[in-house]
Amino acid sequence: MNISYFDDSRITEKTIKSKITKLGQYRQEIRENMEENNSDVPEYSLYYPKDFTLHSNITELAKTYKNIKHLVVIGIGGSNLGTEAIHQVLDEGKVKLSVLDTVSAYNLAVLLDELKKYKKATQLTICIISKSGSTTETLSNASVLIEELKHHFGEEINQQLIFIGDPKTEVEKYAKKISAHYVAMPKIIGGRYSVATAVGLIPLALLGHDTDEFISGYLDASKDEYETITAENSARLALYLQNKYHHYNFFAFEPRLEKLGEWYRQLFAESLGKETTKNGKPVKDAMLPTISTPVELHSVGQLYFSKITTVYTDFVTFDDEKFDFKTTKSNKLASGLKNLSLQEIVTGLYGGVIGAYQERELPYRATILDESLPYSLGLFMGMRLREIMYTANLMDVNAFDQPNVELYKIKTKEILKI
Amino acid sequence: MNISYFDDSRITEKTIKSKITKLGQYRQEIRENMEENNSDVPEYSLYYPKDFTLHSNITELAKTYKNIKHLVVIGIGGSNLGTEAIHQVLDEGKVKLSVLDTVSAYNLAVLLDELKKYKKATQLTICIISKSGSTTETLSNASVLIEELKHHFGEEINQQLIFIGDPKTEVEKYAKKISAHYVAMPKIIGGRYSVATAVGLIPLALLGHDTDEFISGYLDASKDEYETITAENSARLALYLQNKYHHYNFFAFEPRLEKLGEWYRQLFAESLGKETTKNGKPVKDAMLPTISTPVELHSVGQLYFSKITTVYTDFVTFDDEKFDFKTTKSNKLASGLKNLSLQEIVTGLYGGVIGAYQERELPYRATILDESLPYSLGLFMGMRLREIMYTANLMDVNAFDQPNVELYKIKTKEILKI
Repeated sequence: MNISYFDDSRITEKTIKSKITKLGQYRQEIRENMEENNSDVPEYSLYYPKDFTLHSNITELAKTYKNIKHLVVIGIGGSNLGTEAIHQVLDEGKVKLSVLDTVSAYNLAVLLDELKKYKKATQLTICIISKSGSTTETLSNASVLIEELKHHFGEEINQQLIFIGDPKTEVEKYAKKISAHYVAMPKIIGGRYSVATAVGLIPLALLGHDTDEFISGYLDASKDEYETITAENSARLALYLQNKYHHYNFFAFEPRLEKLGEWYRQLFAESLGKETTKNGKPVKDAMLPTISTPVELHSVGQLYFSKITTVYTDFVTFDDEKFDFKTTKSNKLASGLKNLSLQEIVTGLYGGVIGAYQERELPYRATILDESLPYSLGLFMGMRLREIMYTANLMDVNAFDQPNVELYKIKTKEILKI
Repeated sequence: MNISYFDDSRITEKTIKSKITKLGQYRQEIRENMEENNSDVPEYSLYYPKDFTLHSNITELAKTYKNIKHLVVIGIGGSNLGTEAIHQVLDEGKVKLSVLDTVSAYNLAVLLDELKKYKKATQLTICIISKSGSTTETLSNASVLIEELKHHFGEEINQQLIFIGDPKTEVEKYAKKISAHYVAMPKIIGGRYSVATAVGLIPLALLGHDTDEFISGYLDASKDEYETITAENSARLALYLQNKYHHYNFFAFEPRLEKLGEWYRQLFAESLGKETTKNGKPVKDAMLPTISTPVELHSVGQLYFSKITTVYTDFVTFDDEKFDFKTTKSNKLASGLKNLSLQEIVTGLYGGVIGAYQERELPYRATILDESLPYSLGLFMGMRLREIMYTANLMDVNAFDQPNVELYKIKTKEILKI
């Protein structure tokens, strides 16, 4: 993983070091918990994939469903964003992924049309993922989809359902009642930290992706080499927050990383977006994360480059040499492009944008994923989970709760009388 | 169109009125230009679709290509966002839309695979849209795609190409040379203001959408009834900017409006995101626009509801009664949902979110598109174009240029030596 930085002049080596010093105790705590394989702390997510049961579950399910054509994931937030992020990068058209996240009768109707074209139920698998077992959106989507598919394919559809969530919820009971698969996730691991549990790994295995490579990268994020970089990155995040930066721009320069941006955005916003510190003091620093791709150079780009507001930018990209096309001068449209290939043009664009950021003194960090993609994604996600925990520690906020989202849920339930 | 407001207590009727007064002269100017059908001012976009040549062009092309299965739009920013926004709402699966915007060899390879499965060139149409005729991304994508399709389908592919852009560019010359269609757009109308020119209307007609209804809504945005609302909305935007709101959240509560959010985001960011006023004074107020759907209630929602930063929210939605599904208590997963239908649940969610915004005193405006969708979209887009012009006028910035995006283009060309 190649990472470079271009910092605001107020973010100095000295200020970074001082933040890193503050992290000392927390880093030590995590190190000890990891050595003891402590499963009672929320940081368990960082080393959980060593778990042996998880691996045998994955292998077994991947074998059972190895010939499917289409996987539907029903889940929202932490239950689907990790899977979507990884699949968007690794997708080679082997198994199609569809997601039902929020409630939309239109989306459900379109998906049903598509699923009913399959001849046999065994060409499909449906993963129903709800940590709490009570997510309104997921239960609504799942119950309707299952009833409709049962009507079409008969009871055998039950064998194509995999339920994933905390143990002892209504969902587990239901799965057992209809003799469908149920896989537990560890209760202590929050939804947005769950990509390397059954929540992410089972769908990814069913999609035909290399979960071993992914896990290997994910666990390497705890190695000294990467852990040190992560501590530095957290120090920077805390400093940009403290220096009143308002915006955080995840810039997926390779457009297939856009959903990785959505995954990180949730992690960032839910973990750091807190009203009060652990001691009840009001939090005053906030960056709102947004996502860009090079398409936005022709959209929000003008605003970014105008420098009228403060944005910390997070460029993430990878080189993909599998595909390329040469422009040919013989096509007069491309006569100015001097036979350059599309990859060369992309590289030029990237250099041009980075150069413009430097000239305008717009701070950024830039990450290039330069090892095998499943490994790189595992490493990246493992590092980012840890980075957010460290940053929350520096801000003295709880990285693991989401207290303010209850209000709209309560109001919704009042309206619906449920 | 049903619009309601919930304002920050500092945004009072008095402050709104005072802003509206300041708009008086500009509104009068536009009114006069409209009466004279003045085609020399950038506000021409607001009444341009009355143009007769445009209508006959659309009708003729729609007839020629009425049996196509797949439309490819090659264009970026203002050249494709409007089409995508409208198609996402109106799509009924008649003609498939693919877009090539930024340069991505991977995306191009995937699209080519798909296009080569068609038996005849006449099943496809390719719209190549570049206002300046020199957009690097568009020329790269177009030249490669055309060469590849020519190789596959032969010269007859030229009859399936439609070039759209300013007159007298290299693109027009090329189109004429290969005897392909070329349709001019008015030079005075900027890319982000061009949805109701050939740029948006020709692709939409080819996709089978009702452009007459769309234009009728678009032109109605100039009627007193809607123009007055627009002036008020601009006053509000200017006031939120002045009161140091940092974030603007386009909340597409109906997920099919997400791309409408992308269209508005470009319009907003490129028009208002200026370093200096027309008189060269530094601009100090900026909101960075972002887009949400109800999926983000499980992601950025926590940060929004925490109220630790200032966000002005723009809810946009519509009711769609074409599709619905009932949850049934007999499916034990849904036993808590009391046989509610998915539409009822969505309505409950919307009410719950609006209620939570009010209780947390988070300011918003909420728009419900309640007439025929092509008409509503035309009206909405016409109103929003005007709103941004008015807001720029209140901020004393130029709504029609984008001076800061040249830098990365220059640097890119230096690197590529083109």
